[in-house]
Amino acid sequence: MTGPRYTPLAQSLPSTVPFVGPETQERQRGASFVARLGANESIFGPSPSATQAMAHAASEIWMYGDPENHDLRHALADHHGVSPENIVVGEGIDGLLSYLVRLIVGPGDAVVTSDGAYPTFNYHVAGFGGILHKVPYSGDHEDPSALFAKAAEVGAKLVYLANPDNPMGSWHSGADIVAAMDALPDGCLLVLDEAYVECAPEGTAAPVSIDDPRVIRMRTFSKVYGMAGARVGYAMGTPDLIAAFNKVRNHFGMNRAAQAGALAALQDGAWLEHVQAQIAEARARIGTIARENGLAALPSATNFVAIDCGRDGDFAKAVLDALVAQGIFVRMPFAAPQNRCIRVSCGPASDLDAFAAALPEALAVARVR
Amino acid sequence: MTGPRYTPLAQSLPSTVPFVGPETQERQRGASFVARLGANESIFGPSPSATQAMAHAASEIWMYGDPENHDLRHALADHHGVSPENIVVGEGIDGLLSYLVRLIVGPGDAVVTSDGAYPTFNYHVAGFGGILHKVPYSGDHEDPSALFAKAAEVGAKLVYLANPDNPMGSWHSGADIVAAMDALPDGCLLVLDEAYVECAPEGTAAPVSIDDPRVIRMRTFSKVYGMAGARVGYAMGTPDLIAAFNKVRNHFGMNRAAQAGALAALQDGAWLEHVQAQIAEARARIGTIARENGLAALPSATNFVAIDCGRDGDFAKAVLDALVAQGIFVRMPFAAPQNRCIRVSCGPASDLDAFAAALPEALAVARVR
Repeated sequence: MTGPRYTPLAQSLPSTVPFVGPETQERQRGASFVARLGANESIFGPSPSATQAMAHAASEIWMYGDPENHDLRHALADHHGVSPENIVVGEGIDGLLSYLVRLIVGPGDAVVTSDGAYPTFNYHVAGFGGILHKVPYSGDHEDPSALFAKAAEVGAKLVYLANPDNPMGSWHSGADIVAAMDALPDGCLLVLDEAYVECAPEGTAAPVSIDDPRVIRMRTFSKVYGMAGARVGYAMGTPDLIAAFNKVRNHFGMNRAAQAGALAALQDGAWLEHVQAQIAEARARIGTIARENGLAALPSATNFVAIDCGRDGDFAKAVLDALVAQGIFVRMPFAAPQNRCIRVSCGPASDLDAFAAALPEALAVARVR
Repeated sequence: MTGPRYTPLAQSLPSTVPFVGPETQERQRGASFVARLGANESIFGPSPSATQAMAHAASEIWMYGDPENHDLRHALADHHGVSPENIVVGEGIDGLLSYLVRLIVGPGDAVVTSDGAYPTFNYHVAGFGGILHKVPYSGDHEDPSALFAKAAEVGAKLVYLANPDNPMGSWHSGADIVAAMDALPDGCLLVLDEAYVECAPEGTAAPVSIDDPRVIRMRTFSKVYGMAGARVGYAMGTPDLIAAFNKVRNHFGMNRAAQAGALAALQDGAWLEHVQAQIAEARARIGTIARENGLAALPSATNFVAIDCGRDGDFAKAVLDALVAQGIFVRMPFAAPQNRCIRVSCGPASDLDAFAAALPEALAVARVR
């Protein structure tokens, strides 16, 4: 008896995962985290009306969700002033990235991203056999011009740009992104990941025309909307591109309660403003904590702050490990020199108090290693 | 400005969908369905403790779900007397089928299924470029021997078999399936879809060894457990095969509340028995309704009943359309001669009363067309 015959591509793929979850770390430590500040979740929570909508939908969960995501797509279209045909809803940006890469990238196809940008995008590109080309960050910012020049050089079919950026929290004005797009090579699609754009200053969302076939924009309910565990993301693009997702997506893949929750969250503008204010406050507090410890916090347009630990990646990793040992879940960038930083998510005062209490010892431990 | 360059495979795919959802039909009709009996959902609902668990988890939805699905996988392992390494949890059987096909099927690879079996499996096979070979049903049953003989003939990498079967509700004993597996060709993986097995007589679940590399078994919380809208399925197989899913799956794709709900549902054996009894009662009632209208109900080991309308597919389609026009959502098999039937999901008395009230007129309308 022999086992299955995998595709050559599947055989070649590693079994590594993009991220280790905090629950896995908790099981390894044998204790829960005191503060969960590593995954850029919104500890401020979702809109109470979203929570209510999801709780209510729990009693209707015997029904499959609407495979067209009709009500949510229409509400999003109204929200953005576009047509429902410009919007596809999916299982988080992660799920949508997988579908998009599958539609466009085959074995050997070139794709461009920044060295140290979102690992899950890279995971999907590798998963469909694409060849990743990376350009470095420039001053802790993604570098649109360098990305698009590299895309032209290697004939890329996709180029990935997050604005604001994760893991650094840096950003470009939307107008600068659109201007840089003049250099996008023909036939290369820009994946503009705007997961954090609701935390960013006015003018950060790229003012691209919804009819522009060169770009697809991704948004999520996982960050400012506080629904990471619900898995609701969406993409905006031309009707042709959006319709192509119907060729490959899991049509009945959206959780019914998640659809209802996202719809309610979208309609609660007051909660959005409340969270935006909380995030601004938390960013300032994280900056203060960094300074009190002799460290610099990088400017952030996201719901997290990168703190420059002042030495190399090994030192930052030692700080991170010492924080984790004290029950503070944080993460850090993967690539040098950005990996001189640790990345701390915004949270309520109690969580940041715990971080503030743990950081001096973490630095002391790291310094004597 | 040009649009994206899709893969040749993506360009070749149609934009058709496996199923039109009932919400789409309701929007087209401009009215809600009176009875939702078409998608084999469990109108009896999930365990109250599952509903509670999901409602509670709504307040924690700001956290991503555990990407390892640790607690649910361990509970499932205990439930089945296997190891957690034998179990992968995914976004419904639909999601797991997509991952499995992706791991094994590339352009031109042969796959075998029954003509008229689960369209979503076919959708995934086509979506990864596989070539489907179909064998007919035998007496309204899937035909394991014919399936496996065809797999040998065409060198199939995958063969799909649902037991019990959807859309006919027929079944084989698990022992018969295992005996037929002697004819499975080397290197061909059997996908045994047991989505409905909790509705079936004792002995229907195939007694395959968990170490048998020739088979992967799929189960779901969408049917008897009443959680279709939550999107929780799982597969059981050898550790090697299960680990391969980690190469391609959306690691953070599981809704956090859905994980909690499935865990609670699994632990409520009393509710499972309650629903099993309700299903048995409803199957009998659907049989009675059929007989009262001069029709024959097929034996069923599922939570639905195929009713033989006594003529051809066009006639059954006319009956179905006339039911839908009266607000009764039902579906029907796609392939002849099984498409002489309509397929009616089990439900509480009130739903079946509505079906019973509508069927005579539907038949009358169909007969005069």
